[in-house]
Amino acid sequence: MSDGIGRVETQRAVVFDDDRPLVLESGARLTHVEVAYETYGTLAEDGGNAVFVCHALSGDAHAAGYHDGDRRPGWWDNIVGPGRPLDTDRFFVVCANVLGGCKGTTGPGSTDLATGRPYGLRFPLLAVRDLVETHRALLRQLGVSRLLAAIGGSLGGMQALQWSLDHPGEVGGALVVASSARLSAQNIAFSAVAREAIMRDPDFAGGDYYEAGRAGRPDRGLALARMIGHITYLSEESMRQKFGRRIQDAVEPRFGFDVDFEVESYLAHQGQSFVERFDANTYLYMTRVMDYFDPFADPAYVGRQVAAGRAAEGGGTSYLVLSFDSDWRFSTEHAREIADVLRGAGARVTFRELSAPHGHDSFLFPVPEYHRTVAGFLDRLAAARAR
Amino acid sequence: MSDGIGRVETQRAVVFDDDRPLVLESGARLTHVEVAYETYGTLAEDGGNAVFVCHALSGDAHAAGYHDGDRRPGWWDNIVGPGRPLDTDRFFVVCANVLGGCKGTTGPGSTDLATGRPYGLRFPLLAVRDLVETHRALLRQLGVSRLLAAIGGSLGGMQALQWSLDHPGEVGGALVVASSARLSAQNIAFSAVAREAIMRDPDFAGGDYYEAGRAGRPDRGLALARMIGHITYLSEESMRQKFGRRIQDAVEPRFGFDVDFEVESYLAHQGQSFVERFDANTYLYMTRVMDYFDPFADPAYVGRQVAAGRAAEGGGTSYLVLSFDSDWRFSTEHAREIADVLRGAGARVTFRELSAPHGHDSFLFPVPEYHRTVAGFLDRLAAARAR
Repeated sequence: MSDGIGRVETQRAVVFDDDRPLVLESGARLTHVEVAYETYGTLAEDGGNAVFVCHALSGDAHAAGYHDGDRRPGWWDNIVGPGRPLDTDRFFVVCANVLGGCKGTTGPGSTDLATGRPYGLRFPLLAVRDLVETHRALLRQLGVSRLLAAIGGSLGGMQALQWSLDHPGEVGGALVVASSARLSAQNIAFSAVAREAIMRDPDFAGGDYYEAGRAGRPDRGLALARMIGHITYLSEESMRQKFGRRIQDAVEPRFGFDVDFEVESYLAHQGQSFVERFDANTYLYMTRVMDYFDPFADPAYVGRQVAAGRAAEGGGTSYLVLSFDSDWRFSTEHAREIADVLRGAGARVTFRELSAPHGHDSFLFPVPEYHRTVAGFLDRLAAARAR
Repeated sequence: MSDGIGRVETQRAVVFDDDRPLVLESGARLTHVEVAYETYGTLAEDGGNAVFVCHALSGDAHAAGYHDGDRRPGWWDNIVGPGRPLDTDRFFVVCANVLGGCKGTTGPGSTDLATGRPYGLRFPLLAVRDLVETHRALLRQLGVSRLLAAIGGSLGGMQALQWSLDHPGEVGGALVVASSARLSAQNIAFSAVAREAIMRDPDFAGGDYYEAGRAGRPDRGLALARMIGHITYLSEESMRQKFGRRIQDAVEPRFGFDVDFEVESYLAHQGQSFVERFDANTYLYMTRVMDYFDPFADPAYVGRQVAAGRAAEGGGTSYLVLSFDSDWRFSTEHAREIADVLRGAGARVTFRELSAPHGHDSFLFPVPEYHRTVAGFLDRLAAARAR
């Protein structure tokens, strides 16, 4: 493996404005949308080598390389770079912070130009489709009208799936990893409790906490939400291997309510570091986007869009649907449903359950078989394009 | 099935006092311990037909029958009563609120006689053994020196197990249902987040909220803790069947942060009704009791105690270890470990995994095969006693 991408910077673009507002699935309009994004590699002259990385709930535009002064690279550096599966020697890779996010793209923490104050919960509710349309507007500015591939894990996979359905001629391959086309009642339950933790924090103030300053934010609630989520990201087995029942900093249990077991200290740390980098309102919006996601609700639409894709130049989207055997948040059953529905609608689908111990988070890890599968799939897409 | 027990009342007894204090596993002492309890059926003249019901995290002494004016019976009425598996025509059934509880037995909400104020977190940390010793002190007052059986689900099963190990000649049968001899890292993680929810509630006030009145209690935190717990009590499948993705009171989703899916409304209701009947400090103490439970930590002790039981009159404890296939909080793996260790130590053990859809909560439901298994096991214990 090479040395990776090196130094990068996050850039910004205004992609919707008064003259060309974004009309959301809900009917609401946003008249100023900025997007934070990064690109790696070079766009081919025919514009045909673009790969869009869709990030998950807590991700951002900084997928790979190093920001100035940083000691750790972007969140998916292990898969994006020269010679890596998303090979920046061959592909033009784009990653953008989602609409509703808190890392540079317009979201609930942004200033509502109509009032001069942060939106808070006055920011409109979003659908996965709205996230996709924002990414598409960015790509138009970058001169990309068709993707070689869209790839994402979890909420990112939802975006890749929605994109391919809504714009059948536009996505050569959709790599839908550790994702779901429809949350289960249990999935929704975990999200609901996480949201309750945030909304019951007295500092939440109905979402209008931005002007209260750093110390006035609903950090307690957001940390709890993250801790709850984090349990569902790891497999029981990986927790056992990582922590077992080991006692923190001590040979004997202290028998108290302070952090005692290592797993408690780990979760507390996850919660604390999360509040330093994430916004509680964005957490609410993104979990709600996932709750409501249901792209197969209208089977006739799915069939029509897949057929339109196959009739289009390029023959529509090829799907790679991947799950991990230790993922109990979005188990293989979720992935199999995606594959089955798409196949039933006539799409080309490769479905694989991969073995990895990291639970839902496996999609972030450099699992060799996983990376080989992604690289192989992209190779075939690139070869098909060359023909 | 008969009509059940009818009207009952919870009674109280002082079981430890200045002259005879309770010395806890931690070394701390309690010089005044009251226990709330109920009994059903009649103690045989030889005192040999007593069955002790050990309750779980949120249970109480009111296992069966109706309190005056109540429309719903006790929490385990389906298994306790004339002709039911814990047959009150034949057995003298006792159930008591645990030490550290909030339903009549001394706990963190009780007045510390040394200060005249509620204990709060100054109440000593507890071990399962301390709960058992309190039950035993109650039984001595009731004239019971040996149990036909001790039975319990979850934390209740832990008590039955500990009791049989610590007092080998005293427990004819231990029915350990949906329980664990050692929480996994994931189990501890869920408990830890629930405790964090309580302790981060600004109304928690370090556990000294009793004097703040009903409205000053850490209800937000306790409701969240219950919601988190509740997700782990149900199976994914039972949630799917119960709620699916149905929208609450509406045909169309409302796209907002209010309760929208039925599962959200169910969890919110569970949280709210819990705070009306339970104490946040007790929740902390009981989850910590479970985290630290590790009765097999010293294998030599287990072997010695089992051998002592087999040498005693009555031949020691017979075990019935049960798990439910849909229980992912304490999966069959936990039960199998209990059975394996006890068998390895030379105990008589019957182990069965039962099929039931209700997840961890299955132990509370009248699953026919489960009730038959319990009734058959108690029959054999009673027959062995008669010989």
